[in-house]
Amino acid sequence: MKHISLLGATGSIGTQTLDVIRNHPQHFKLVAMSAGKNINLTRKIIAEFQPEFVAVQEEEDRDSLRAEFPSNIKFVSGHQGLVEVAVYDKTEVLLNAVIGSVGLYPTLEAIKAKKTIAIANKETLVTAGHIVMAAAKENNVDILPVDSEHSAIFQCLQGERAASIQRLIITASGGSFRDLKRDELKAVTLEEALNHPNWSMGSKITIDSATMMNKGLEVIEAHWLFNLPYEQIDVLLHRESIIHSMVEFEDSSVMAQLGSPDMRVPIQYALTYPNRMTLPSSTPLNLAQIGTLHFEKMDMLRFRCLKFAYDAGQAGGTMPTVLNAANEAAVAAFLKGEIGFLTIEDLIEKALDWHRNIIDPDISVIHEVDLETRKYVNTLF
Amino acid sequence: MKHISLLGATGSIGTQTLDVIRNHPQHFKLVAMSAGKNINLTRKIIAEFQPEFVAVQEEEDRDSLRAEFPSNIKFVSGHQGLVEVAVYDKTEVLLNAVIGSVGLYPTLEAIKAKKTIAIANKETLVTAGHIVMAAAKENNVDILPVDSEHSAIFQCLQGERAASIQRLIITASGGSFRDLKRDELKAVTLEEALNHPNWSMGSKITIDSATMMNKGLEVIEAHWLFNLPYEQIDVLLHRESIIHSMVEFEDSSVMAQLGSPDMRVPIQYALTYPNRMTLPSSTPLNLAQIGTLHFEKMDMLRFRCLKFAYDAGQAGGTMPTVLNAANEAAVAAFLKGEIGFLTIEDLIEKALDWHRNIIDPDISVIHEVDLETRKYVNTLF
Repeated sequence: MKHISLLGATGSIGTQTLDVIRNHPQHFKLVAMSAGKNINLTRKIIAEFQPEFVAVQEEEDRDSLRAEFPSNIKFVSGHQGLVEVAVYDKTEVLLNAVIGSVGLYPTLEAIKAKKTIAIANKETLVTAGHIVMAAAKENNVDILPVDSEHSAIFQCLQGERAASIQRLIITASGGSFRDLKRDELKAVTLEEALNHPNWSMGSKITIDSATMMNKGLEVIEAHWLFNLPYEQIDVLLHRESIIHSMVEFEDSSVMAQLGSPDMRVPIQYALTYPNRMTLPSSTPLNLAQIGTLHFEKMDMLRFRCLKFAYDAGQAGGTMPTVLNAANEAAVAAFLKGEIGFLTIEDLIEKALDWHRNIIDPDISVIHEVDLETRKYVNTLF
Repeated sequence: MKHISLLGATGSIGTQTLDVIRNHPQHFKLVAMSAGKNINLTRKIIAEFQPEFVAVQEEEDRDSLRAEFPSNIKFVSGHQGLVEVAVYDKTEVLLNAVIGSVGLYPTLEAIKAKKTIAIANKETLVTAGHIVMAAAKENNVDILPVDSEHSAIFQCLQGERAASIQRLIITASGGSFRDLKRDELKAVTLEEALNHPNWSMGSKITIDSATMMNKGLEVIEAHWLFNLPYEQIDVLLHRESIIHSMVEFEDSSVMAQLGSPDMRVPIQYALTYPNRMTLPSSTPLNLAQIGTLHFEKMDMLRFRCLKFAYDAGQAGGTMPTVLNAANEAAVAAFLKGEIGFLTIEDLIEKALDWHRNIIDPDISVIHEVDLETRKYVNTLF
């Protein structure tokens, strides 16, 4: 029986993680969870999974849940609540599925508390990869990927030596606007941006897919997770999202992980690793029915955010923090209808130009740069 | 330094194995080899690789080579010569790349002598899989696949548990005649049959690819190598031969091995397993350049030999021996221009109908059934 803390239980990854736990009650138990403001769904999850420890964002939600549920369930709130859930005594695995750099502190604290980390919160590694990976090494803790691309690479690396890796090939569906030219992007709407061709995901990551920033963040995440220079990380446009990613080895052999798009597969793999389990109601891959898989070179001029990410990653220091914070602020503005789609890129570019890189930043520098960048971006529109 | 015995050194797999050895002189040494009747090439190989022990088919070739080369190289001939090369004292790995069921005895003897087996000779496993795998288990000897499909599956299985396997998916290019209908096959010539779209291979295996018997033999080989029932082994038409085969696991995750068609990749993997090494002059896979991969359901009515193979495999006993022997005899007749292309299938079907299955045959029964079947098939045209 594996005891799980789940951060971000009401989100897209969160609810799919709950489905995995629901399917294997003899193997997994949700002992602690966090949610944001979706208190109705939080109520239902508590009723079904009976966690012992629940964090929510707002104090008043915490108080009303306390009044509602039996006293053996402990309720907390705010950032500190997230950390408490992450390091909960009975927890063996922390699945971190919150959105944005708010996921960083709970992850670091959980690493220090020797919890295995299943990481869906890519901003944690983008913003502070060098700190997180060093802490994981020091505490001898596994960081298991939950993103479908990184899970694919991780699966491809089982039974292989890191020294044999030639190249990671991260596939990209191209997002909602892959068939539009740059000048056609000026007039796209929020609704169109939220309509992803292959995956049903949260709104922030869906916008990140449309700008290709999601792939950029994944490149930086892969750099840290698999300890490889950016020159050995490629992105390949693959519209069907059937090959989730690949690894080329020194003998030119390429290993790939494939499947029908279903986030429960990588979520479950992170929880069952190094083993597998059945996944009820999953759709077996039927390549004969799919018929064709397409691959195209990724166009860095068309997808400027991907170029920004490679540049920020290669520059290192606080540049990835700026990239991520500027992107979070810009996407939030786009989701509120305050800026147009292409302005997202412009704001990120301006923030990267504005910032003076700080090499080997500690966690307080990262925190400060993150806040400063958001503030700066919010002055730009 | 790994000491290698190579059976079938002058064939297609043999010469590519020599290329792998040539590329890594610090890791591999050819200590013993066999060749058939291509004595000119045998001379060149001996001069370059300086093996200590050489078997050829004919006594007179043996004698003339003895006269030619220094006396520290030992020459032998015939079937017994093959076995002596296979069990040569200094040998650690036997790479068996002879064609046809003649490869069986040397493999069995090498297993008893505790040599690691790299098996390119699929007829060995088709004809006597139950005996070979039992002997390997008893002697704690690895049987490493050299066929690109089985190597792909083997690579996909690294780091995985056998119990998690849902299904093997063996890909098939479709061979020389994949775009012809059955009534168009009546008039095809030997020359057309020898023109494989993706792989440059020996003539027997190229014909086997055109009839799809090659895939049938591979299904039976996979059954034995990976210890799975036929219901869990599928064949998928994939014309580009880029995905060399796949494994579906219980969580619906599919692992695949890909690469530009190059037999040196699986040959080298069998020799470096569980590690990899660089493969000079190999062509890295460029999926963006390839652009599209196609997949189609395999049509068992169009490719009757594949159906015969599944049926013979499922029947077990001596049926796979009959399948293989009838196929060898029929293909030999086709290569000599004695029968038409579609007659290959008819002869195999007749032999399977004619034979009364013997369950759990020992090696002498297999030998007898093999000879009888060839004799019978040769009476049919």
